[in-house]
Amino acid sequence: MIFSSTLLENAVTQFARLPGIGKKTALRLVLHLIKQDAVEVNRFSEIIATMRNEIKFCARCYNISDTDLCNICSNSMRKQEMLCVVENIRDVIAIESTQQFNGIYHVLGGIISPLDGIGPGQLTIDALVERITKESIEEIIFALSPTIQGDTTIYYISKKLKPHPVKITTIARGIAFGGELEYADEMTLAKSISNRIPVENFMVSGH
Amino acid sequence: MIFSSTLLENAVTQFARLPGIGKKTALRLVLHLIKQDAVEVNRFSEIIATMRNEIKFCARCYNISDTDLCNICSNSMRKQEMLCVVENIRDVIAIESTQQFNGIYHVLGGIISPLDGIGPGQLTIDALVERITKESIEEIIFALSPTIQGDTTIYYISKKLKPHPVKITTIARGIAFGGELEYADEMTLAKSISNRIPVENFMVSGH
Repeated sequence: MIFSSTLLENAVTQFARLPGIGKKTALRLVLHLIKQDAVEVNRFSEIIATMRNEIKFCARCYNISDTDLCNICSNSMRKQEMLCVVENIRDVIAIESTQQFNGIYHVLGGIISPLDGIGPGQLTIDALVERITKESIEEIIFALSPTIQGDTTIYYISKKLKPHPVKITTIARGIAFGGELEYADEMTLAKSISNRIPVENFMVSGH
Repeated sequence: MIFSSTLLENAVTQFARLPGIGKKTALRLVLHLIKQDAVEVNRFSEIIATMRNEIKFCARCYNISDTDLCNICSNSMRKQEMLCVVENIRDVIAIESTQQFNGIYHVLGGIISPLDGIGPGQLTIDALVERITKESIEEIIFALSPTIQGDTTIYYISKKLKPHPVKITTIARGIAFGGELEYADEMTLAKSISNRIPVENFMVSGH
């Protein structure tokens, strides 16, 4: 693409670096912004910079947060004894959107996947074990994607937690094997939380 | 979608206002930016704001420009007597990318389309007629999308230009009727410029 404006070209290049955005889509987005009011576009730009500069990760659960402790962890109305383990922030948003879970979270930052070079050391598993020791958690619900990697992660963590008197469950297999948690509809996801099963049962009947 | 961070929610809302970007895609883009270096994201934000605040429309051809006169108009190497009339800026970029046209442009800002409420008065047709009177233009090449609206626009403008001794041509019909100019491949577009035909012929053989 040949541009007659460097300002335009730079903006298109920036947008085209985003995942899933090609040059033609980037151009369409930039031309859309040119048509918008300058005040609006400056607000857009400011909100993105502020977000990146001020966003934090919760010191307790590693969820994305505006403050040191995220507003789920610091909400006294939520059951502090029920902890849901998820792979990433998108999964927290997906579960929160079902409005069916009233406990707290722990974000692993990924799942064990040797093929992708992700081992337990790169995840927040040690921090999770520490939480179990320090906090009065009664139940851990694994809400991981139902894949071999997800199962491996559940197996690894539940073995690590064996010395601790905590109930370990996993969300029900309402979601098709190999599917991605974040794309499940809210109803299926809500069902799978209420029908959660103890890990012992699941490990016997599983693959 | 329920967010535990207002910073995140605001950024997602901003992205989701862009055309063709839904909430899930917006979230994916924002989470990508969070993973990037803060310096990079601030640069992204700055480039977009600067682009919107400093971008101009060329005072002569209405192309997008960094300066009062765009760098196509102010380039003395380009044939100032050969003028290509296009619908919008995307079409200028598409034609420039073929590297086959060495004249100058005139951006109409749309085409005559009564159904969409766009009449000749909303386009830069008067400015085009004025340019023909003042500049030493020998040939006008219409490079409009081959639709009824495009043909109507060519017909309307060529009638207005009758009193002026200027050759009027249109790009060859290499592009399927009803197609969109900006999606044509560069080869087809380049061919259609070199095979342009006088408007008289085209009007007789046309629909």
